[in-house]
Amino acid sequence: MPSPFIDLARQLADAGRRFDHRGWVLGTSGNFSAVVNQDPLRLAITPSGAWKGELAAADILEIDEACVVLDGRSGRPSAEAPLHVEIVRQRAAAAVLHTHSLWGTVLSDRYAADGGVAIEGYEMLKGLEGVATHLHREWIPILENDQHMDRLAGVVRRTLSSQPACHAFLLRRHGLYTWGKTLPEAVRHVEIMEFLLEAVGRTAHRSNDGGHQDPC
Amino acid sequence: MPSPFIDLARQLADAGRRFDHRGWVLGTSGNFSAVVNQDPLRLAITPSGAWKGELAAADILEIDEACVVLDGRSGRPSAEAPLHVEIVRQRAAAAVLHTHSLWGTVLSDRYAADGGVAIEGYEMLKGLEGVATHLHREWIPILENDQHMDRLAGVVRRTLSSQPACHAFLLRRHGLYTWGKTLPEAVRHVEIMEFLLEAVGRTAHRSNDGGHQDPC
Amino acid sequence: MPSPFIDLARQLADAGRRFDHRGWVLGTSGNFSAVVNQDPLRLAITPSGAWKGELAAADILEIDEACVVLDGRSGRPSAEAPLHVEIVRQRAAAAVLHTHSLWGTVLSDRYAADGGVAIEGYEMLKGLEGVATHLHREWIPILENDQHMDRLAGVVRRTLSSQPACHAFLLRRHGLYTWGKTLPEAVRHVEIMEFLLEAVGRTAHRSNDGGHQDPC
Amino acid sequence: MPSPFIDLARQLADAGRRFDHRGWVLGTSGNFSAVVNQDPLRLAITPSGAWKGELAAADILEIDEACVVLDGRSGRPSAEAPLHVEIVRQRAAAAVLHTHSLWGTVLSDRYAADGGVAIEGYEMLKGLEGVATHLHREWIPILENDQHMDRLAGVVRRTLSSQPACHAFLLRRHGLYTWGKTLPEAVRHVEIMEFLLEAVGRTAHRSNDGGHQDPC
Repeated sequence: MPSPFIDLARQLADAGRRFDHRGWVLGTSGNFSAVVNQDPLRLAITPSGAWKGELAAADILEIDEACVVLDGRSGRPSAEAPLHVEIVRQRAAAAVLHTHSLWGTVLSDRYAADGGVAIEGYEMLKGLEGVATHLHREWIPILENDQHMDRLAGVVRRTLSSQPACHAFLLRRHGLYTWGKTLPEAVRHVEIMEFLLEAVGRTAHRSNDGGHQDPC
Repeated sequence: MPSPFIDLARQLADAGRRFDHRGWVLGTSGNFSAVVNQDPLRLAITPSGAWKGELAAADILEIDEACVVLDGRSGRPSAEAPLHVEIVRQRAAAAVLHTHSLWGTVLSDRYAADGGVAIEGYEMLKGLEGVATHLHREWIPILENDQHMDRLAGVVRRTLSSQPACHAFLLRRHGLYTWGKTLPEAVRHVEIMEFLLEAVGRTAHRSNDGGHQDPC
Repeated sequence: MPSPFIDLARQLADAGRRFDHRGWVLGTSGNFSAVVNQDPLRLAITPSGAWKGELAAADILEIDEACVVLDGRSGRPSAEAPLHVEIVRQRAAAAVLHTHSLWGTVLSDRYAADGGVAIEGYEMLKGLEGVATHLHREWIPILENDQHMDRLAGVVRRTLSSQPACHAFLLRRHGLYTWGKTLPEAVRHVEIMEFLLEAVGRTAHRSNDGGHQDPC
Repeated sequence: MPSPFIDLARQLADAGRRFDHRGWVLGTSGNFSAVVNQDPLRLAITPSGAWKGELAAADILEIDEACVVLDGRSGRPSAEAPLHVEIVRQRAAAAVLHTHSLWGTVLSDRYAADGGVAIEGYEMLKGLEGVATHLHREWIPILENDQHMDRLAGVVRRTLSSQPACHAFLLRRHGLYTWGKTLPEAVRHVEIMEFLLEAVGRTAHRSNDGGHQDPC
């Protein structure tokens, strides 16, 4: 029987191949984590600078809540590990996935002045945990990007705390963060969000031309 | 010799891989069925919440006309099973396929006020059963999305009954339903429709800019 | 040693997988041929209604100049076989490939009133046989689509005869025909043309918005 | 233990498959090199006219600084080999990669009058060697395309000399050149640049419609 860590590490590597195929983690972008243990907190997390389409389970690192690598291994966890820890705490998430798609990047910029993107009326919204109807209105906050991870983790904390219903957020010109109560749920949330962002991106475009449609 | 059910189950799983590759069934969206027996009606159908790119034949369920799973198996059929049963009845179809593509979603919204999209003049239309010339005019009805499956099944019944020539319909901001007299014919109809929707989507866009083209 | 027919049949099947991956032959669209013998003319050609991504060499048919299947085999050659024969004659081509891409379809309609698309200034043009500089101006004629194959073959003959320099033509709202002195050259011409059509398609779009660019 | 040449040849072939999957080297376009030895200079380089998705290590050629093939092999190196030699000298690069993507081609034309494209504010910029913040402003020079390789090599030399910070340049309507201190770094630079060019391409488009956004 594989240990929980190995099993999660394999699933994180699988997610990497899936997202790489879609072009959502080009150039070693993106990072993923899954909770190995809640208390004390132990996270399986992708290493810094790895190609997500070529990850092996052996590449995945185990860190504690201070983002220190356990077991004396030499790798360096993703620089954004503090955001993963913050999200796990705020949402009791079992997995956190960060992708870096074209449409996520473009929309995070297009709607930055509004502070977020609202998406409603799409059947695909039902793929988000707890959503039972396409009439649901999902607000995806957009946070200014920041190289100071502790400061950014604070912004993430306050955002998730003040917006308890949101399933994801965007970092401006950076990408998407989403999560789930299981790793497959988090993977599903990535696919749902990336689809919706592209749908809004292409619809809004038209709306600007013709003026008869409000995309969000 | 494989039973008809197993053979159809394998073909449904193959269709899932094909459509997943194209990005038409992201995030466990979409659902597929094929007729195992006409009278009494028995359908092979995809389970609720499955990744369509990773389906195995063993994941496929068999249901009756009331959408009850046979053989005591524990899975839950797609929530949209009543629509499949309705389409099989109205069209004497051997297979029903529902995809959830970007362009299907975008166009189902763009043309919702018109009640449908008309497509004509494309050679690709000849891929639709019974169509012999690109001059054919295909009307794809757009139905308002609805979480009440029985009510929506009624709308589907009335739509198909009043529009006997249509090969497919769109649910608004939801996706495409098409069917065929065989499962391969239904797969072909999906590819034809998805192609045409994207072609119209990109052409209409231009038309709006330049004003010299009526896409439908 | 494989016979010339078998070897060409395998290469045609390989081309099918390549183009299917790109989405250029959806829904059994497209057809391909290669010359097995020049005099009397013998063509290896794809059968009608086949999925191009799943072709086996055994699916390929051998026809004569009247498009009659040889060797008593039961398949039906592509309905557009007369166009292949015409192109082989007019251009002394060793292979003829017809794809059905999104951008080929969209551009064949956008520029139909001009009778063709002119493409110049692109390095990619050097991939066309006999072209040594990006300053080359390639004219791609657009022919009205027609279900009468003999009549359309006549239009193809007159077009190729009057425009001896062109490497390809478009059928309106139908797709691309190109060819080569070898089968790999014809495959290369498909990829070059599909790239150029998409580049022009996306550039022209912008030009219409901003008015500062003449795409062809 | 494989020789350095064989090892690099395999990595170049791997890069070819990766970029072919993305559609960045259609129709035998693109060319790649890696430094086998610095003094005297020896480059492993792709041959002229090869499909980049089907390269074997045995197809890769070894050339000297005059672009002469060593070891009496009969192949012909890429016609753009002099540009590779020039870049290796100017940047002390270990690898040089030239892709030919849709968006690289479109943007190299759209911004030709400005002499280049400026990209700033994107997290993805941190994937470029030596860049530590998304606030970085990257200038990608655009050079007029030229069939005279010696003359073009001179333009490349002067451009890289006068712009010591740039990580890449575009040839107009031709494609992207980038490089790295290792071959994996060069591969990462390709993916970063192609992503950024598409992001700018899609954002600038919108900007032109709405006027409220300056993409560079």
